[in-house]
Amino acid sequence: MNIGILGLGTVGGGVVNVLSKNENEIFARTGEQINVTHGAVKSISEPRICADGNINITEDAFEIVNNPTIDVVLELIGGTTIAKELVIAAINNNKHVITANKALIATHGNELLTLAKEKNVHLLFEAAVAGGIPILKSLEQGLSANKIELVAGIINGTGNFILTEMRDKGRDFADVLKEAQDLGYAEADPTFDVEGIDAAHKLAILASIAFGCELQMDKVSTQGISQISGEDVAFATELNYSIKHLGIAKKVNGELQMRVHPTLIPKTQLLANVDGVMNAVLVKGNAVGPTLYYGAGAGDEATASAVIADLVDIIKETVSHDVLGWKALTEIPNCDPDNIDSVFYLRLLATDKPGALADITTTLAKHNISVESVIQKQIDAQNNAHIAIITNRVSTASLNTAITEIQSHEFIQEDVKIIHVENLD
Amino acid sequence: MNIGILGLGTVGGGVVNVLSKNENEIFARTGEQINVTHGAVKSISEPRICADGNINITEDAFEIVNNPTIDVVLELIGGTTIAKELVIAAINNNKHVITANKALIATHGNELLTLAKEKNVHLLFEAAVAGGIPILKSLEQGLSANKIELVAGIINGTGNFILTEMRDKGRDFADVLKEAQDLGYAEADPTFDVEGIDAAHKLAILASIAFGCELQMDKVSTQGISQISGEDVAFATELNYSIKHLGIAKKVNGELQMRVHPTLIPKTQLLANVDGVMNAVLVKGNAVGPTLYYGAGAGDEATASAVIADLVDIIKETVSHDVLGWKALTEIPNCDPDNIDSVFYLRLLATDKPGALADITTTLAKHNISVESVIQKQIDAQNNAHIAIITNRVSTASLNTAITEIQSHEFIQEDVKIIHVENLD
Repeated sequence: MNIGILGLGTVGGGVVNVLSKNENEIFARTGEQINVTHGAVKSISEPRICADGNINITEDAFEIVNNPTIDVVLELIGGTTIAKELVIAAINNNKHVITANKALIATHGNELLTLAKEKNVHLLFEAAVAGGIPILKSLEQGLSANKIELVAGIINGTGNFILTEMRDKGRDFADVLKEAQDLGYAEADPTFDVEGIDAAHKLAILASIAFGCELQMDKVSTQGISQISGEDVAFATELNYSIKHLGIAKKVNGELQMRVHPTLIPKTQLLANVDGVMNAVLVKGNAVGPTLYYGAGAGDEATASAVIADLVDIIKETVSHDVLGWKALTEIPNCDPDNIDSVFYLRLLATDKPGALADITTTLAKHNISVESVIQKQIDAQNNAHIAIITNRVSTASLNTAITEIQSHEFIQEDVKIIHVENLD
Repeated sequence: MNIGILGLGTVGGGVVNVLSKNENEIFARTGEQINVTHGAVKSISEPRICADGNINITEDAFEIVNNPTIDVVLELIGGTTIAKELVIAAINNNKHVITANKALIATHGNELLTLAKEKNVHLLFEAAVAGGIPILKSLEQGLSANKIELVAGIINGTGNFILTEMRDKGRDFADVLKEAQDLGYAEADPTFDVEGIDAAHKLAILASIAFGCELQMDKVSTQGISQISGEDVAFATELNYSIKHLGIAKKVNGELQMRVHPTLIPKTQLLANVDGVMNAVLVKGNAVGPTLYYGAGAGDEATASAVIADLVDIIKETVSHDVLGWKALTEIPNCDPDNIDSVFYLRLLATDKPGALADITTTLAKHNISVESVIQKQIDAQNNAHIAIITNRVSTASLNTAITEIQSHEFIQEDVKIIHVENLD
């Protein structure tokens, strides 16, 4: 089995290293020798994290996808331009392709998977979601008896690191983001991580496999964590919640909801205790009940673990995918975001005049929104009251109408902060 | 695909119910109709949890394993006598077999798997370990790139329920055990659950798959939770640990350790937060790092979820087992229990005479055992001091020698309680 790797950076170098250090175990499991014969890099002279003595290195990745001696191509370059061209060329040359590229699969997966099916080759991407956690295989195989009801995951390690530091050390978002960049967790342009785009890519893939529908990246509603303040984190803690950046996919009344947003979850939930850069995905099936999968969402060898697991599946012919694991894809209508019911956390800054809280709760009540918990504090020099409210379960549309009305009171000093609350039970 | 089910009790009934309610999803995933054509029961007149209108019911299970129209036999009777005969007969008749029977696989698996290999049929048992959690498939497929370093699991729900109640409500072991029996979690004879035998069965299976060696049930050192007192639970909480009944398998210096025992683990560990009847398995791979798998360890439909997942694997031909997932099994020597290094929790009851604690710690120090934490309380009318100690990492042999010496002091009022401490990091 001859392998060509496109990209010998963090993930590609990790794959070479893991194949080398676990050669005996992988051979014992597969009975076959895996040879990385070719590797494509941006610059031959660049330093690499892996030994490459036995690899033919080229700067022309197309040489590899067109090389008839290669059986499987690992696309570990990233991005959606050149990577897409290379994957198409490899499939057209009847090669199996394994990729860790969530953006590519989320945005062009339907086209690429259809092409792979036509050419009767595999296009696998376990590493694209939640790094080393075998979550796609678990959905496709381990939970294959279930109607999936809910997928809810912490699927961006950078965001989880930031929220964990804010909670545990009382630090500000901007301050922790800078540290995450210094540590190499976050890119110089952190938009993909902190604004939820990376998580949305992964959620689109999870939803497609969980519910057996096409990839619908454009239907994921996405909200980042950059607006979460230290005050929100502190209020959440006081209310016995933890704020996590979740990707949530669920089918309600036959409609698919896919949303990425900061979420208050009860501290007693396992997901609330998944901290730092770690990832975890909660999956509820109608037979198995709640299950959870936890592990490293990034890193060279953790991601390599998932890439190589796909490779072993190809070698052992145990690939369960057939266009996303399903023989027949269904069309599922998308839920109108206004129709989503949720519990909400509201944070308000109000001039401390008598009756302010009464006015707020009266307006909520007028829209059939009741208050489950409330905390009011006066902590600033301007004599403003800081108020946090947990509502009952209401439709997003009702909440928005009520908030618009509350916002019009002159004693409200800034935009009302709204964050979803999910009890996940 | 025609299925015969041996046993239509909790699990068998659950399988019929899940196949029925998720018929569309399972068909969409497999492209094949699954027909449960035959079922064997102890008594035809007994009430059942599933509809059986389309199933030929018999009281003679051998009729099913000898029936040439049946492709797959589900052995859901339990036990190691008649169940073993039936599985052997089914395999000899060239039928695939799926079982949820941990005792059968742990004690007779080597023989049965060898026979299945000879007959070129599958013998699958995902449901035998941790119920609905797809832990065997994750070890075999999702983590196939890894050298496994550690498997540590809460794999007996009854025991976890008892320890959780003791911790959260300050209740006694005997009191909670009685409730567990009333709730149907524990059998009338609770020995298998509370003395760790059930967990040992599951651990032997996990270790075999994780490390690629034969099943060695007789090499699992097993200790139950019946000796855990409310005082131990309270001391553990005060020391920032939670007591869990763990099954631990790890390879240290080329030797395999398999042990089931109560264990203090730091409260910050996810495993420490797996409560009630839920199960979870922590797996550390040398590439992926720590991963964790959580879900229901028992129950009709949760167990059925795993049984049917094996069935789907057979239908889709995505079974990764080849005698426990490995092409080549290795022999791994077992570790001498005295050579196991561990941190330990010690609880002592001592007459409150001056210098008692000094005598204890001096004796420990003489055997190179240092004290990481200590709590001493006088809480009884007999003026006895209640002492809890967390040691540094020491060999079991050194500890035992030191404890024998401490035990000989006349001021020691009862046997020193010794519990493993695992930080799992």
